[in-house]
Amino acid sequence: MRLSILLFVFSITFFSCDSPKKKEKVREPNSFAIVIHGGAGGGIKRDNISEERQEIYKQKLEEAINAGYAILEKGGNSQDAIQAAITVMEDSPLFNAGKGSVYNSEGNQEMDAAIMNGKTLNSGAIAGVNHIKNPILAARIVMDSSKHVMLSGKGAVILAEKYGIELVDSTYFYDERRINQLKRIQGKEKTQLDHTAYNPEFDLQDHKYGTVGAVATDKDGNITAGTSTGGMTNKKYGRIGDVPVIGAGTYANNATCGISATGTGEYFIRTVASHEVSSLIQYKNQTPKEALHHVLFNQIEPLGGEGGMILIDKYGDVYWDFNSSGMFRAYKKSNGDAKTEMFEITE
Amino acid sequence: MRLSILLFVFSITFFSCDSPKKKEKVREPNSFAIVIHGGAGGGIKRDNISEERQEIYKQKLEEAINAGYAILEKGGNSQDAIQAAITVMEDSPLFNAGKGSVYNSEGNQEMDAAIMNGKTLNSGAIAGVNHIKNPILAARIVMDSSKHVMLSGKGAVILAEKYGIELVDSTYFYDERRINQLKRIQGKEKTQLDHTAYNPEFDLQDHKYGTVGAVATDKDGNITAGTSTGGMTNKKYGRIGDVPVIGAGTYANNATCGISATGTGEYFIRTVASHEVSSLIQYKNQTPKEALHHVLFNQIEPLGGEGGMILIDKYGDVYWDFNSSGMFRAYKKSNGDAKTEMFEITE
Repeated sequence: MRLSILLFVFSITFFSCDSPKKKEKVREPNSFAIVIHGGAGGGIKRDNISEERQEIYKQKLEEAINAGYAILEKGGNSQDAIQAAITVMEDSPLFNAGKGSVYNSEGNQEMDAAIMNGKTLNSGAIAGVNHIKNPILAARIVMDSSKHVMLSGKGAVILAEKYGIELVDSTYFYDERRINQLKRIQGKEKTQLDHTAYNPEFDLQDHKYGTVGAVATDKDGNITAGTSTGGMTNKKYGRIGDVPVIGAGTYANNATCGISATGTGEYFIRTVASHEVSSLIQYKNQTPKEALHHVLFNQIEPLGGEGGMILIDKYGDVYWDFNSSGMFRAYKKSNGDAKTEMFEITE
Repeated sequence: MRLSILLFVFSITFFSCDSPKKKEKVREPNSFAIVIHGGAGGGIKRDNISEERQEIYKQKLEEAINAGYAILEKGGNSQDAIQAAITVMEDSPLFNAGKGSVYNSEGNQEMDAAIMNGKTLNSGAIAGVNHIKNPILAARIVMDSSKHVMLSGKGAVILAEKYGIELVDSTYFYDERRINQLKRIQGKEKTQLDHTAYNPEFDLQDHKYGTVGAVATDKDGNITAGTSTGGMTNKKYGRIGDVPVIGAGTYANNATCGISATGTGEYFIRTVASHEVSSLIQYKNQTPKEALHHVLFNQIEPLGGEGGMILIDKYGDVYWDFNSSGMFRAYKKSNGDAKTEMFEITE
């Protein structure tokens, strides 16, 4: 009798073996959130940025996050919210996007941008454009008003103009600091790849951070991700980085999450980084935190890459991670949580 | 006593519940294989292609597969093999790549191509180029001789020229059939999107197949994937499709598989199609057959997309699937298996 009881207990234990108790997680109804980044890179260190300059960056990040949050708060959708946040950063010379775009090897600027709608998986991306004051707006036009997903060069500019997107002369983007950056790099004959060690010669701006991005989830639970960049100083003419490559620098899927990335773009393309994070969440049951860490530290870093990602998941929670020394970032949630940071992760 | 035996049996059954016996699969040492496609689409039907014309396509596909196989057979690597197969198809006016590229809305041709090395995850892609006789060779230069992964337009041509890739005048690509195709489409004011129904007005060439691709695995088990295309007839100037977007139309990773896709590119970008197949294999333990079917029929088709994918997995096995009526395709394996087909899957 004792034997049969033991065996019965033994069998009951195994009967429940396939049904591990999972914590049931739910999204807070009508909640919303937005997270942004202004670039990740080795130059973002306390030694490199004076407190005065830190304050300038902080104020601009807060202006951007508030612009996006205000739209969500009024019941607006996540596409409009990320667009509002990104255009604030594009209009500032502080970041490597729009006005502050770096110069390529020809002494010109070529901007890329992308936006993705997590509900429909519809996307819009532009690559290698100039003359468009706010590249994210042109990406949105490609998504909303074109049968295509990705347009480059003059073709993108023609479409943007057709839809009334503001065009400017190239001189709008002129920035003496960026020109000097180009000259310094060309003097050293390399693109900004090895900048992990502190080099007092380099102005903060020389380091390959830059690229701006935003991810938002609105009251309907729809996630949108967007990214915008001037690329890399002294990049080869025509170089396209990860930003407009859906699944690399920009990705959104209501089933999993929305992501915007920043860093050494080539590595984010080769690892299909943002879609890889989404796949780890969806198919390997990793948490966003685990997935971000795995892709940045176990996939991108071993190849030699550096950067960061911001993410909002289907529950409306915000995550970020980076393997560089810093990343300009901020988030704001409807539950009152908010943060603006640039150096090491403190939580 | 009978009760305890029953319970013992019961418990043994459950004891084995977590350990389903998995068939241990291994790669045949020193085996190699190559698979190619010449495009998928609704026009590839017996009603549309005379037997004479079928024979012409068959011979060209066999010429391409043999060119790649010959390299593998001599112990060559998979990068050289797929390049050999693809250049044969690029040099033929039969396919929408290289010489046979379709015209965009401006009456010009813009070609895209990509190659990815499954061992290193290194990649090379070019987008929106003309004047390059064999776009796949330029993609290879970007991968092997550039710090970048993706170059567009003039920048790509400049790099190709620097590395001795053959440039030709645009007239090299002139093809009367393709010009007529453009005129017909423009007359109807739409890109080739709705062509699933048989339309006797349309020449076979009007249908949106085309794009060529190849995946190979060599004796060292290294997988390479490559794709090359002229895009879509009447596509908007500057439109970039899935071919040069790593993770969409082209992907290779020795850990899972190599893939080349063909079809309505926008849908392959939005679903990050080839990386999605790889993720389903890697993280959801699906077979390549299940993964291909899921992405084509349960993800791309519901969105309105159409096309196909060819795949070689880490065991050296060949797979293909498509949700269009046909796909030009062929494979050849070191174990003697070989096949050249274009219509419905027969196995």
